[in-house]
Amino acid sequence: MATTSCTVYIGSFVHCRSVTELEIENDGAIGVDKSGVIRFVLRGAGGNAENIKKTLEFKEAFEHGHVEFVIVKKGGWFFPGFIDTHIHASQYPNTGLFGKTTLLDWLNTYTFPLESSFSDLDKARKIYSRAVARTLAHGTTTASYYTTFHVPATNLLADICLAKGQRAFVGRVCMDQLSPEYYRDESIEIGTENSRKCIDYVRSIDPAGEIVQPIITPRFAPSCSKGCLAALGKLQKETDAYCQTHISENKPEIELVQQLFPESGSYANVYEEAGLLNEKMILAHAVHLTPMEKELIVRRKAKVSHCPASNTALTSGCCPVRDLIERGIDVGLGTDVSGGFSPSILEMVRQTVWVSRHLAMTDGDQAKLTHEEALYLATRGGAKVVGMQDKVGGFEVGKHFDAQMIWLGDAEDIEGCDEFAAREGPVDIFGWENEEDRIAKWVYNGDDRNTLAVWVKGRLVHRRKEYDC
Amino acid sequence: MATTSCTVYIGSFVHCRSVTELEIENDGAIGVDKSGVIRFVLRGAGGNAENIKKTLEFKEAFEHGHVEFVIVKKGGWFFPGFIDTHIHASQYPNTGLFGKTTLLDWLNTYTFPLESSFSDLDKARKIYSRAVARTLAHGTTTASYYTTFHVPATNLLADICLAKGQRAFVGRVCMDQLSPEYYRDESIEIGTENSRKCIDYVRSIDPAGEIVQPIITPRFAPSCSKGCLAALGKLQKETDAYCQTHISENKPEIELVQQLFPESGSYANVYEEAGLLNEKMILAHAVHLTPMEKELIVRRKAKVSHCPASNTALTSGCCPVRDLIERGIDVGLGTDVSGGFSPSILEMVRQTVWVSRHLAMTDGDQAKLTHEEALYLATRGGAKVVGMQDKVGGFEVGKHFDAQMIWLGDAEDIEGCDEFAAREGPVDIFGWENEEDRIAKWVYNGDDRNTLAVWVKGRLVHRRKEYDC
Repeated sequence: MATTSCTVYIGSFVHCRSVTELEIENDGAIGVDKSGVIRFVLRGAGGNAENIKKTLEFKEAFEHGHVEFVIVKKGGWFFPGFIDTHIHASQYPNTGLFGKTTLLDWLNTYTFPLESSFSDLDKARKIYSRAVARTLAHGTTTASYYTTFHVPATNLLADICLAKGQRAFVGRVCMDQLSPEYYRDESIEIGTENSRKCIDYVRSIDPAGEIVQPIITPRFAPSCSKGCLAALGKLQKETDAYCQTHISENKPEIELVQQLFPESGSYANVYEEAGLLNEKMILAHAVHLTPMEKELIVRRKAKVSHCPASNTALTSGCCPVRDLIERGIDVGLGTDVSGGFSPSILEMVRQTVWVSRHLAMTDGDQAKLTHEEALYLATRGGAKVVGMQDKVGGFEVGKHFDAQMIWLGDAEDIEGCDEFAAREGPVDIFGWENEEDRIAKWVYNGDDRNTLAVWVKGRLVHRRKEYDC
Repeated sequence: MATTSCTVYIGSFVHCRSVTELEIENDGAIGVDKSGVIRFVLRGAGGNAENIKKTLEFKEAFEHGHVEFVIVKKGGWFFPGFIDTHIHASQYPNTGLFGKTTLLDWLNTYTFPLESSFSDLDKARKIYSRAVARTLAHGTTTASYYTTFHVPATNLLADICLAKGQRAFVGRVCMDQLSPEYYRDESIEIGTENSRKCIDYVRSIDPAGEIVQPIITPRFAPSCSKGCLAALGKLQKETDAYCQTHISENKPEIELVQQLFPESGSYANVYEEAGLLNEKMILAHAVHLTPMEKELIVRRKAKVSHCPASNTALTSGCCPVRDLIERGIDVGLGTDVSGGFSPSILEMVRQTVWVSRHLAMTDGDQAKLTHEEALYLATRGGAKVVGMQDKVGGFEVGKHFDAQMIWLGDAEDIEGCDEFAAREGPVDIFGWENEEDRIAKWVYNGDDRNTLAVWVKGRLVHRRKEYDC
């Protein structure tokens, strides 16, 4: 859905210049055409619309007079939209519910009963609508979703994402063993056929795949037979779709895979043997990979979704992210709702920092990740994981404008507050903070209240009341 | 400041029955007299004001007709106010700013320059007002504050807490070495005298110590000479005031203490030798204590403030909380702003769970703490740490009414949302959650938006706009 006019986004913008470094431009202007593509990026733009009108190289639209201006609130900035590379949309109502469980009992206690209820399309609509609205509110402009094994409900999520304008990979969950009898594919053939139906449907509603795309989704090796995985490998070759699954999340799960696939030699090799380990594969977790598995993943160019909140909540372990990055593996962040307790990628940025510090307590300082590095994983890193590095993740000419407007509030508000008042937003600004301080305050104390508006491909897909003030 | 009428708080209430178990009463009524003291707690109260009027044993006030009713919003509950046993009010503007530092360089980079600026009382007023308003908004009804070494600014914080109605321990920071020359007590005598001035002032404005109390505050052993600590030990005996300091936060700090106090044998013994290790001592962090130090702390009945966010952010280590509790040490939670990145004790409840899971990854499952246990530490545990276990931390007759009204929003809201809407609050309720689920969703996804109102000793000290709806 294109916007009706070209738009120039004026004011500060921040994005990742490299894995370790942010670019902070305080006087920027980003020109976006009607199709949502960035046509120019100005630095030192002169600070106001008149100057920009004079200097911009965006002639065509001006000649026709159809240009709108969006000016960031004072002290705020545009930031690339977040990319959630691993989220179970169907588990969204269980966010925060995991008790004392670890992975395998968590699946039976919380997850399978909920997922199996998605035969009810009204329920599915309610849950998926909330999940998409909520993640958009947190600045997630692209999400790679797991659904359930139901075809109609899976297709409904694709409809909802397309209608709300969130980029999404939508994946029907495949499994033919080790899940309850009431919730597994009846046969390999029926499961594969159902996955094909979802692929066809998603491609029918968005033929160019600009907003929604299908993704083949074997839940994880323990719940898929060798035949099931092989059939999905074949399906991937035929359809050239993306694929997502889980790997090496916790130790009992790894032992289970060794028991179930004794001849495969390693967890990664189970996917390799099925033809699924390739550059279109997103592997969630990857906490306990062996060096040989890492080497195989590097060779196959498969991607990793780091899910720090889930790995901590379920006591799975600490993913050695720096090691994966240094080996050349593309890593993005995933909320892993509802193994993860939060639908916010900003919270995952924090959790990435915390997990890296816990890893540093045992493995040494080199394991530590800065919040700049975590922001990279949340944007450009995630873009690589979903194969969209040329399209989203930063503000460059030719990329699509997937962005959020960040605002922390005014320092002046502090003076005028009455006896009871705490600022509406979660961050207190005193007025003496420099740019790096403001970004750190956003990262460590910010939440959805600081994301005033969100755009995908130039379309406004979320706004808060403060956006209009 | 007493309220003008007796009040009955009607509806659900939740508090900790034991370290491991919550009491959830869905049909409660808590009667509070004019002085803020709980006079009755009804269970199965009949659900409405009329029934309660008929059944309550709270005759006196009724005879005079001065009773107000506060009814919790549907689906909400009253919960005891949180107790922050360790927070640096003066560092509040630096919340979220710590970069890549660990403890000792963090002090020099972020902390000392800010703290030393509190000679400016206008600046102090701005910062302290925000810190108190913000922590009240997060449901903190009692806080143990560190200030700076300035007498007037310290006294100002006591004034602000008394005016806003937050229970507080207010402690002038003492140090006579290893801080910058511009920011240390000129001599032991001057430092001790300044601390005495603050004790006298705080006791002059609240002679009964109902809301504000003084607390003697040697920053930590490395920045206090042996003479300084001994003088403060003597001051404590003379004044019978509480005392707070830091202990065994990270390993380089512990080595520094060994170098500075080679004859003391241990970090804990440095405080013991000064006469400071007793039941009125709050020790923050206690991450790396030796078994002998723990035994000494048990014998002296000193208390521990667990600061999980700070210990993770500064890569200090994982405090073995279960071990401390099982030894019989009283443990509460502390935000440790700004070593900690959040002023919210609810966030500390989460962080306590996360740190315990990271400890479990190396030390085994017995290290894990549940969120019920963490809520205990945030309320009753904290009350013991500050010596108020007979006064606050739960809803029992004779205790003071320090409470917050929690509300997650209505399930019905979900249907009516328009295209852009995400719910204003951070939690999505679908309507099928049981009570335990709702509490878990609050703990893991909630924030200050779910704390609609806060009372200290029966006085309304914070409210959100939704409270009046």
